[in-house]
Amino acid sequence: MDEQANTNAKWKEKTFEIIFKADTFWGKLFDAILLVAIFLSVLAVILESVGRFRLNYGIYFLWAEWIFTGLFVIEYILRIIVVKKPWHYIKSFFGIVDLLSILPSLLAFVFAGAQSLMIIRGLRLLRIFRIFKLTQYLGEASQLSTALLASRKKITLFIATVLILVSIMGAVMYLIEPPESGFTDIPRGIYWSIVTLTTVGYGDIAPITPLGQIVASFIMIMGYGIIAVPTGIVTSEMNKSRFKVDSRSCENCGAKQHGDFAKFCHNCGEKLPPIS
Amino acid sequence: MDEQANTNAKWKEKTFEIIFKADTFWGKLFDAILLVAIFLSVLAVILESVGRFRLNYGIYFLWAEWIFTGLFVIEYILRIIVVKKPWHYIKSFFGIVDLLSILPSLLAFVFAGAQSLMIIRGLRLLRIFRIFKLTQYLGEASQLSTALLASRKKITLFIATVLILVSIMGAVMYLIEPPESGFTDIPRGIYWSIVTLTTVGYGDIAPITPLGQIVASFIMIMGYGIIAVPTGIVTSEMNKSRFKVDSRSCENCGAKQHGDFAKFCHNCGEKLPPIS
Amino acid sequence: MDEQANTNAKWKEKTFEIIFKADTFWGKLFDAILLVAIFLSVLAVILESVGRFRLNYGIYFLWAEWIFTGLFVIEYILRIIVVKKPWHYIKSFFGIVDLLSILPSLLAFVFAGAQSLMIIRGLRLLRIFRIFKLTQYLGEASQLSTALLASRKKITLFIATVLILVSIMGAVMYLIEPPESGFTDIPRGIYWSIVTLTTVGYGDIAPITPLGQIVASFIMIMGYGIIAVPTGIVTSEMNKSRFKVDSRSCENCGAKQHGDFAKFCHNCGEKLPPIS
Amino acid sequence: MDEQANTNAKWKEKTFEIIFKADTFWGKLFDAILLVAIFLSVLAVILESVGRFRLNYGIYFLWAEWIFTGLFVIEYILRIIVVKKPWHYIKSFFGIVDLLSILPSLLAFVFAGAQSLMIIRGLRLLRIFRIFKLTQYLGEASQLSTALLASRKKITLFIATVLILVSIMGAVMYLIEPPESGFTDIPRGIYWSIVTLTTVGYGDIAPITPLGQIVASFIMIMGYGIIAVPTGIVTSEMNKSRFKVDSRSCENCGAKQHGDFAKFCHNCGEKLPPIS
Repeated sequence: MDEQANTNAKWKEKTFEIIFKADTFWGKLFDAILLVAIFLSVLAVILESVGRFRLNYGIYFLWAEWIFTGLFVIEYILRIIVVKKPWHYIKSFFGIVDLLSILPSLLAFVFAGAQSLMIIRGLRLLRIFRIFKLTQYLGEASQLSTALLASRKKITLFIATVLILVSIMGAVMYLIEPPESGFTDIPRGIYWSIVTLTTVGYGDIAPITPLGQIVASFIMIMGYGIIAVPTGIVTSEMNKSRFKVDSRSCENCGAKQHGDFAKFCHNCGEKLPPIS
Repeated sequence: MDEQANTNAKWKEKTFEIIFKADTFWGKLFDAILLVAIFLSVLAVILESVGRFRLNYGIYFLWAEWIFTGLFVIEYILRIIVVKKPWHYIKSFFGIVDLLSILPSLLAFVFAGAQSLMIIRGLRLLRIFRIFKLTQYLGEASQLSTALLASRKKITLFIATVLILVSIMGAVMYLIEPPESGFTDIPRGIYWSIVTLTTVGYGDIAPITPLGQIVASFIMIMGYGIIAVPTGIVTSEMNKSRFKVDSRSCENCGAKQHGDFAKFCHNCGEKLPPIS
Repeated sequence: MDEQANTNAKWKEKTFEIIFKADTFWGKLFDAILLVAIFLSVLAVILESVGRFRLNYGIYFLWAEWIFTGLFVIEYILRIIVVKKPWHYIKSFFGIVDLLSILPSLLAFVFAGAQSLMIIRGLRLLRIFRIFKLTQYLGEASQLSTALLASRKKITLFIATVLILVSIMGAVMYLIEPPESGFTDIPRGIYWSIVTLTTVGYGDIAPITPLGQIVASFIMIMGYGIIAVPTGIVTSEMNKSRFKVDSRSCENCGAKQHGDFAKFCHNCGEKLPPIS
Repeated sequence: MDEQANTNAKWKEKTFEIIFKADTFWGKLFDAILLVAIFLSVLAVILESVGRFRLNYGIYFLWAEWIFTGLFVIEYILRIIVVKKPWHYIKSFFGIVDLLSILPSLLAFVFAGAQSLMIIRGLRLLRIFRIFKLTQYLGEASQLSTALLASRKKITLFIATVLILVSIMGAVMYLIEPPESGFTDIPRGIYWSIVTLTTVGYGDIAPITPLGQIVASFIMIMGYGIIAVPTGIVTSEMNKSRFKVDSRSCENCGAKQHGDFAKFCHNCGEKLPPIS
């Protein structure tokens, strides 16, 4: 009995290493096959939506859908079994994505077309960073997300201000422009303001009166400056994270420009005072 | 009598704390209710503009409009009564916004449709920053606005130059293109230039002759570089705050541009005064 | 005779001060009137192009055109007479603009519609920077143009590469797309590539085949990165011009981070070695 | 015989200097003629695609095509003969471009229209940087490409994430919008997402339902932030070269991230080795 528990534990550990890690040959192989399966599954969802393909090969897509879903269900259950803290995995980013990627097939029983949601499986492709030079790529990613996280407050403030601005501009354009130009109500005016301020400019709604065009010109030139703000925020944040110089000066030689991680003066080697 | 004046003063102070501050429970509750009321009032204005909603629920929107306006009028009068320097409040940013947000309802008696201007109430939503971690958000905001203010002159120069450029380009396109392509007069040419230079590109006016397309291509590539300028200005301004040149001038030779870590003048070697 | 020459010289000097400088009351008045005249003259050209205005007030525009042109001719001749180095003025930026702004009226005798070119007078409005805090604004302008000039080579290389890229992409799209989608020849393909790469996106020409849309997607994502390059160049250049730190270290205390204009160490006041 | 080999070697060397270098008069002349020939050849390809020109001057274009192709074939063979390491040249960037620029003419025998591919000759125009101040321009180019290369990993991660995002958004829009608005299948939805996220915005596909417009607005505002990322990456990378952290690690404790001005380890105070 004890021996069987031992074998069981060994089997669990081995499967864990194959499924969750990418250091051994089998681990790499598993990840590679998994990624190909995910990619094919996403491709099937995309191609199935094209009328021509659905008509001619509909039955194959149905088969592919169920086979891939079956495989992913088995994989998901296996992951929960072999991992030491199942709840920790289920709540993690990849745990939620893994669950979400098998749900739409079941949803498709209730709502027709729900299988298009299977495209969320695409997020699983992010695992690709695990195979090729994992740490490097994730390091870059975390640097990016640190920069974004650090400017979270600025970005919130920025988006809130933009939303209030586009609402006001949308209402003004609704007042100025006749319905023929597409500004039939304020929500459409707001939609147009967002399309214009982000410089997307579809042209499905566009001002036709001289006054409307003057206001629109004003909005566009303002948008010119506004688009610079997020760029400035991210760039500034990225620069900051690289080498934060604090305000300490060495008590021995007076040198400045010490990184905030420095314990000793770069000029004379004297111990630096702690950061206050 | 003295006691009553005292009670009156106490009542004023308490109301002041509830309405203007967000530190106490009642202050927070008041702000929360106010924000919800503002949001609902703005939403009502937006939805009323949609034909389908106006036809079916027109009477409810009218009621909502008058109830909200009534509440905001009472709130505005209360604010003036309880604040110590009423004039100071009336002239402040939020004082003006508060007044502007109750005026359109009265204007609607004279001009039909003026109630759409009530959307300006949206600006009152900026108070939201007062409830959640006020100082933090306002700190970020002031950092942004300091950067913008510091580059005020550069931005003015930039916009003036852009306006002169688009006027000239608009006139050139008006000369080149036939009226069929939408360039029926110079103002429309200028409008097109702004739409193009800001990379919005609706496509309602677009060159159709080869020469017009060549000139347009030239404008677009130029716009490529021009869009970089405001970004450069803002980013540069944001970075500036990091490596600080302070405002000290040398008492011996008058030189400026000393880093905030400098102890001696870079020009004559005289000891600098400490940073005040 | 000598006295008369003296009077003449005095008259010249006084007129010079009024026309060319903006320090005295009369100088400021002259500049203000000139700017208003230029602005009205440009406005007349713009409004004249609008069919409705031309029909109703055509004769007034003609009068305005000739009066303004007459005034500007007199002003131009006066400038040449009173300035000490006439040739220097004629060859300067404002000298050329002043000449160009009176030529189109004469051209209009030969080519109908040439008066639209009078909009070039708009460039004269740049004189406005002379009246209000001249040096400040021009300082900002020169900072901008220094940054642009310094990155001249990078920008040339960038534009040359972009032009070669859009030519190739335009030819590829011409091969892929049927003429119905607007890609009737390679020049139109190149025009479309520029419209797309600069993210203007009119939509007058747009791919309709799946393959064309895939290639277009590729171009757009590439354009995503390309648009970052000029921004990076300008921002980088603007940062650089602010505080150029050279590599010298103080021979006495070893401190670094000296500005390239520094003669003495900021840390100990010792004389710095000259920049090698 | 020996003498003839000598003459042969001399001839090779001289031709090499003319064809590959731009230092001598003949070298410069050769490069100038070559560039003009390439430019004319590219221009011929572009103009031939215009129906009007092809009809009237078709025969001249055919002649030009064959003459230029003949010249370039001779030039390519000459280059292989006179260069010391032919294989090295053939595998180099310009070697491949030179080969690609003569292939399409031969391909045109098999596929009609393949001669449009001759536009790839445009890449040969990059040789222009060799004539005018070669090193300077190439220095700028290598600075740009170093910055791009250094951010290769970040850019890959960024593009992969963007591709996964647009796939999901494309599928969501396909579910929300009716086929009338252009979202007939998921690939078209993905195409629309890319067009929107890059702010190109043709308008050939645009949401028409309120829900679709809300989701689109969300995508556009998100795109606002996303477009800032590559700019931030490139700018940040370009700035990095200014404040240099060198690659030295402390011999005592192994700490890294020393500024290039540091003499002592910031972590343990040990003297650092000099920069090699």
